[in-house]
Amino acid sequence: MPKKIKYSLDQVYRLLEPGPVVLLSTARAGRLNVMPMSWHTMMEFVPPLVGCVVSSGNYTFETLRATGECVINVPTSALAKKVVACGNVSGRSVDKFKEFELTPAVAAVVKAPLVAECYANLECRVVDRKLVTKYNFFVLEVVRAWIDPRVKRPRTLHHQGEGVFMTPGRTLKLPSPKTSFLSA
Amino acid sequence: MPKKIKYSLDQVYRLLEPGPVVLLSTARAGRLNVMPMSWHTMMEFVPPLVGCVVSSGNYTFETLRATGECVINVPTSALAKKVVACGNVSGRSVDKFKEFELTPAVAAVVKAPLVAECYANLECRVVDRKLVTKYNFFVLEVVRAWIDPRVKRPRTLHHQGEGVFMTPGRTLKLPSPKTSFLSA
Repeated sequence: MPKKIKYSLDQVYRLLEPGPVVLLSTARAGRLNVMPMSWHTMMEFVPPLVGCVVSSGNYTFETLRATGECVINVPTSALAKKVVACGNVSGRSVDKFKEFELTPAVAAVVKAPLVAECYANLECRVVDRKLVTKYNFFVLEVVRAWIDPRVKRPRTLHHQGEGVFMTPGRTLKLPSPKTSFLSA
Repeated sequence: MPKKIKYSLDQVYRLLEPGPVVLLSTARAGRLNVMPMSWHTMMEFVPPLVGCVVSSGNYTFETLRATGECVINVPTSALAKKVVACGNVSGRSVDKFKEFELTPAVAAVVKAPLVAECYANLECRVVDRKLVTKYNFFVLEVVRAWIDPRVKRPRTLHHQGEGVFMTPGRTLKLPSPKTSFLSA
């Protein structure tokens, strides 16, 4: 498994802002689970806040609500088949870590596991539930972040519907006087 | 200007889920404005709901709060320089449509203008303000969607921080029994 190093919390937006599919991992009473998710957005730089929708029909929903903890794991295209597989069965009936040969690693702060194969892992706590009942929308705070330092240009997956995923192509660099004007 | 056709509301998630930078346009008392935004997420398929953060320091914030209307416009890399330019000045001091030669087009349902140069345009109304005060987070309902039917593989912009944008590369197609397992 790749050796991860701590990633600066004020840089977390750079991982999530371009819209990658992520794997959301949770644990409850020793039972681990993981689901793919594309409906997430940054909400604040420091501390990094992330808003995300977890459908109330998903097994993850009850675990997240009960434990208030999860890990956002960012996979690359090497994991594409496993990502799709994780979305097509429920953690109610299948131990997806075993079934799809994903490696749970112990997190530093939360009880939910890291998915070791993902190049970045964000340990999160639920900090706001005001929109959970109406929209299944959780506000998470990233409390610890990890990255595989060898991965310089991750081939992240960007879901375009119906099993189609865009992967990164050319990069444009444009002069911008602000760190992230896009939410300034 | 490209001729747009109506886009099905239940397909809107396919435009926003992969995480493109968008241009958010607004109007108040005849004064138009536009800002780039990357902090957005789908929240529901039908009617399509989109959550987004508009910083309270932005001129757009007050307009959006006052009018409850906006348009989410999806640019391609052909507009990259203008997108960045729109993020580096405030609508308080500059008419960005004029300054950056963007064409405002009349929307069907809302008073905010479409940015004609963008290949897709989503007319939106604010439907929930519960997280506005604390997080500058607005829940929008897309009430009408437009697309340029000639654009088959849009080169969307995906912000990675510090003026770096990823553009789409290879597409992966994986068998998935569900329309969008990623939020199922």
